[in-house]
Amino acid sequence: MAKTLAVSPLAPASFPDLPVIDGVRFASVAAGVRYQGRTDVMLAVLDPGTSVAGVFTRSATRSAPVLDCQSKLGGDPEPGAAILVNSGNSNAFTGQRGQMSVAELTRATGEIAGVPEARVFTASTGVIGEPLPHDRIIAKLDALKTALIPEGISDAARAIMTTDTFPKGCSRQVEIDGKTVSIAGIAKGSGMIAPDMATMLVYIFTDAKVEQGALQGMLSKLTDRTFNCITVDSDTSTSDSLMLCATGASGVDATGNGEFQTALHEVMLDLSHQVVRDGEGATKFVEIQISGAANDADAKTHAMAIANSPLVKTAIAGEDPNWGRVVMAIGKSGAAADRDKLSIWFGDVLVAENGWVNPDYVEADAAAHMKQQELLIRVDLGIGDGTSTVWTCDLTHGYIDINADYRS
Amino acid sequence: MAKTLAVSPLAPASFPDLPVIDGVRFASVAAGVRYQGRTDVMLAVLDPGTSVAGVFTRSATRSAPVLDCQSKLGGDPEPGAAILVNSGNSNAFTGQRGQMSVAELTRATGEIAGVPEARVFTASTGVIGEPLPHDRIIAKLDALKTALIPEGISDAARAIMTTDTFPKGCSRQVEIDGKTVSIAGIAKGSGMIAPDMATMLVYIFTDAKVEQGALQGMLSKLTDRTFNCITVDSDTSTSDSLMLCATGASGVDATGNGEFQTALHEVMLDLSHQVVRDGEGATKFVEIQISGAANDADAKTHAMAIANSPLVKTAIAGEDPNWGRVVMAIGKSGAAADRDKLSIWFGDVLVAENGWVNPDYVEADAAAHMKQQELLIRVDLGIGDGTSTVWTCDLTHGYIDINADYRS
Repeated sequence: MAKTLAVSPLAPASFPDLPVIDGVRFASVAAGVRYQGRTDVMLAVLDPGTSVAGVFTRSATRSAPVLDCQSKLGGDPEPGAAILVNSGNSNAFTGQRGQMSVAELTRATGEIAGVPEARVFTASTGVIGEPLPHDRIIAKLDALKTALIPEGISDAARAIMTTDTFPKGCSRQVEIDGKTVSIAGIAKGSGMIAPDMATMLVYIFTDAKVEQGALQGMLSKLTDRTFNCITVDSDTSTSDSLMLCATGASGVDATGNGEFQTALHEVMLDLSHQVVRDGEGATKFVEIQISGAANDADAKTHAMAIANSPLVKTAIAGEDPNWGRVVMAIGKSGAAADRDKLSIWFGDVLVAENGWVNPDYVEADAAAHMKQQELLIRVDLGIGDGTSTVWTCDLTHGYIDINADYRS
Repeated sequence: MAKTLAVSPLAPASFPDLPVIDGVRFASVAAGVRYQGRTDVMLAVLDPGTSVAGVFTRSATRSAPVLDCQSKLGGDPEPGAAILVNSGNSNAFTGQRGQMSVAELTRATGEIAGVPEARVFTASTGVIGEPLPHDRIIAKLDALKTALIPEGISDAARAIMTTDTFPKGCSRQVEIDGKTVSIAGIAKGSGMIAPDMATMLVYIFTDAKVEQGALQGMLSKLTDRTFNCITVDSDTSTSDSLMLCATGASGVDATGNGEFQTALHEVMLDLSHQVVRDGEGATKFVEIQISGAANDADAKTHAMAIANSPLVKTAIAGEDPNWGRVVMAIGKSGAAADRDKLSIWFGDVLVAENGWVNPDYVEADAAAHMKQQELLIRVDLGIGDGTSTVWTCDLTHGYIDINADYRS
């Protein structure tokens, strides 16, 4: 069973007050899928006309719910939609039986929510390889229907947690044409206990009106700058899902609106950072900034090589300004680099340039930066104008504790 | 300073008796490059006519000695050759000064060894970013020359260690045309202490006669099946070097000889496994076998995704037969896979097939396998005939201890 973990030292002080999003109602329930004494299923029911966009794991072994959701994207928004999420069991690598569970859940949920099965999206997170006891969830659908309220989003954020050490939420409001448009999102990830996986689930809702194709395009573009720029341990879940639903209930069309896109970007960035802050064993939140690469793709390759390097991550855990490991990570990344043109900073401290340590470098300065909880590692490749920023955490004994020492 | 580490539990019982290789003499000395109270420089002098082949790190930030060696490969074997290696300082990321140090060392070594500078190969391993005190090494060259003996290879194996917990050697002898041909090799890697890097250095000597171009071809081919199939933590040193020298002193031409190649393969495989067995914090030696992939390249991609996954490696440390993480690693690797066609074994225990857990699977059987010190994880993709085998170790608290907690 999941062991209770101490709340991450990088957690926000408290869960934010999220605004009600007109056009969506939430309910949560304790179905006993695996966990006892806590909620483990959430239902969101979306009004007719809601646009739904989604991005999912690229894993070749993705779960049955993910495959089902992907097949349903782009469907007619007219009849509304529903999202059903359970924690405790991921219904991943469960063969034909897993697909059957998804079919049963989407059929039954569609019935109680009054939407066609083709507009019911599900996600499951938790232990893998065990049959999902979908009957336990179906037995609670009437209770879920009765409990649906517009204010239920914070309870939903808790119901989708597995071994997260804190619930994750974020919101923004923007004025468009004199009217207020709201965006509110919740996420789970990436605490975990063997044999669970660090699945990331994210659900974002807005009362703006955005045409479905435009919504999908915006979501995909902003995902590349937010959730695709975070890494805890380089491993990728079979179940990662991110859905964005625009109910249109505000009556404000935000298609193509820059302020709306900025606000959505902020919500996605904040939620993605919260996932890193709940990384297993994390004690440091680290931003990696790359500039001067041959192109943006190379910059991201370098950034991810640094962010995923066990040697860099353990050095950060040890508060060691070990710039040699940053050089190593750049060298191994496969992207273009010239040893004698790169510069490295820890925070504002220039550590290395011109192929050698900065002659004015004083290790105590960099060591002082490393003692902070929020760190910046900056590298300029000096060969082009490609840039990238990614976020990660350190690699600590806590990670080993969570993933090796505790058996399920 | 380097802290003394306990010898790896995966270490061989003792250092092997290595045969004398006619045509090469070794010497070791304590030059105080960084370490005190131990040898830290080795010199090997190779008779005229010795073929020299080498493979080196592909890092874009490779060290000055590596760049120098690469520029010298393929030179005329007639005048003989020399190899000078120091531990304690890697002369990596040391700018123009690093290149000057290499020039000084190769010039002075050529003089005392009686070979042209163009046939002097050097390597340095240890702390990076600090100027190599090459004067300390040059001051010991006369003593090294005096100490040269054919029997000095085991002392050389110790002189090149950094924070290795045991010296590494291996040999084979084969009969060709009624004569005995010998191969003996030494290696260092991959224990380390910040801010050192897990540099791997390997030197293999044979008294067989092999034409230089053929020797290089054989070395490159066999490296792909041995040293390029091991991983401790996915990080790549700026200094990795592997050199193979054929003195020809046996008078036996082994060019194109299958038995010789097999023996060389065995020496390289054994040394590469010893490097894994000295992986930081390693408590398990793990073979990953992939079959049924779309092609060999895909098979290796899958194998390395499993071998480098922190979640797989921590599960192994915890003796947890966590096949879900193997599924995850295959899914994220980017190589072709079909969730419903793959099969997974831990040792001889069939864990999963047909997209789900094997119905006859008993976790206790797989858990018993995981308790062993030498593990096998086998995956058949079921979609082609591509195969690959790689070797790795687990990810433990010891890795964090070595790389985060101890400061240099």
